[in-house]
Amino acid sequence: MFAEGALTADRFLDGRLNILQPKDGYRAAMDPVLLAAAVPAKAGEAALELGCGAGVAGLCLAHRVPGLHVTGLEVQAPYADLARRNADRNDLPLTVIDGNLAHLPDALRHSAFDHVLANPPYFPKGGGTPARDGGREMAQREALPLADWLRIGLKRLRPGGWLTVIQSADRLPDLLSGLGPGTGSTVILPIAPRAGRPAGRVILQTRKGGRGAFRLLAPLVIHDGTTHLRDGDDQSTAARAILRDAKPLVL
Amino acid sequence: MFAEGALTADRFLDGRLNILQPKDGYRAAMDPVLLAAAVPAKAGEAALELGCGAGVAGLCLAHRVPGLHVTGLEVQAPYADLARRNADRNDLPLTVIDGNLAHLPDALRHSAFDHVLANPPYFPKGGGTPARDGGREMAQREALPLADWLRIGLKRLRPGGWLTVIQSADRLPDLLSGLGPGTGSTVILPIAPRAGRPAGRVILQTRKGGRGAFRLLAPLVIHDGTTHLRDGDDQSTAARAILRDAKPLVL
Repeated sequence: MFAEGALTADRFLDGRLNILQPKDGYRAAMDPVLLAAAVPAKAGEAALELGCGAGVAGLCLAHRVPGLHVTGLEVQAPYADLARRNADRNDLPLTVIDGNLAHLPDALRHSAFDHVLANPPYFPKGGGTPARDGGREMAQREALPLADWLRIGLKRLRPGGWLTVIQSADRLPDLLSGLGPGTGSTVILPIAPRAGRPAGRVILQTRKGGRGAFRLLAPLVIHDGTTHLRDGDDQSTAARAILRDAKPLVL
Repeated sequence: MFAEGALTADRFLDGRLNILQPKDGYRAAMDPVLLAAAVPAKAGEAALELGCGAGVAGLCLAHRVPGLHVTGLEVQAPYADLARRNADRNDLPLTVIDGNLAHLPDALRHSAFDHVLANPPYFPKGGGTPARDGGREMAQREALPLADWLRIGLKRLRPGGWLTVIQSADRLPDLLSGLGPGTGSTVILPIAPRAGRPAGRVILQTRKGGRGAFRLLAPLVIHDGTTHLRDGDDQSTAARAILRDAKPLVL
């Protein structure tokens, strides 16, 4: 467990959520908020987040969609504990299950969800400099290939259910190669820091048993203008609606 | 060969090129012009176009880069003949070789190029309604999987050479899955009809033996405004530079 002094309390969705995060471990920023906004969930449905960390994406989703049943799976016990505390602090229904993606707990192996979401590690196995913090290293560098995250996520969906994943844009070839048969209606939303700049992130959404053609959407641009002013001051209207006003991101 | 009455003479690059095309067969529009603009070729280098049709892309490239040696491979003899006539009419150096991608002629099998370009068929094998015109059908529906076009193109490159391909955006998963190992520095340029709309085409560029990270660029938007006015009247500045002023498209 994290010591109290090792935590900070951070505001998400313009203060609608107040989330405890480790000072030195993996700290959520914009990505889980964008991920949650892109999940097309409705009240009464069930959603599963693979690798929920301190629970930011799952709690953003539970906040936006009252009546949704959200379950988070987390392999690192201190983060799972934090996610439970964050659900309590924000009075939101998030069930956190301790466990490993590669060996799903029985509770999950026999369940089917309407939605699966994930923010898998961005760095491939091997290579690069490990993070000094072990928890952050585990959150950021994949132990399991990206294709396995997709495969395991798709398995846990009911037919017609949706898988939504946010990932570093440079992993797009791995994301699209990792989608096996039995998926369709796949959409990629590029997320760019500014207009005219390459995408930094992509959101992938695909439907189990879908038959629609693949679509590459116009990018979501986060900041207006061409240079960075003060943090958040130059957010685009579209980004502000999602990040501050807790609106859905419709793909 | 096509009868004279079955041909039209069409202007490309604001009339810089005058190209014979079959009235009823495969007719080039914007795509081969964009493809040629994206090839980063220099004088003295050698480029190979796989499936050159009536020669539009190869001739646009030869026009923009004087001193470049351009070779086109074409399986349909009437189109290969037309490409030769088009090279003559425009006084541009395009060598056209009759032959099949799947069984490359000896002349090509023993050559290495600085650049390979291709505008492969957009429709997967099987399914859909065949075009009434056999030549168009062959140009538009793949006989060989897209991955084979990429593999054969990469084989014909010298180490460090560039492969540039334009394709329908809904084939992006096939394009990226089709890139085997030994490629890198891959870039995708989405091409969208208007700002905020999904991409209609993508240009893929990859380097043989490249080691750079994958990049998903900001889209090239073809038309300004939100609705179609009169043909060409609403082209964006960026599109006009390429399509009318014969400028390169720098990825």
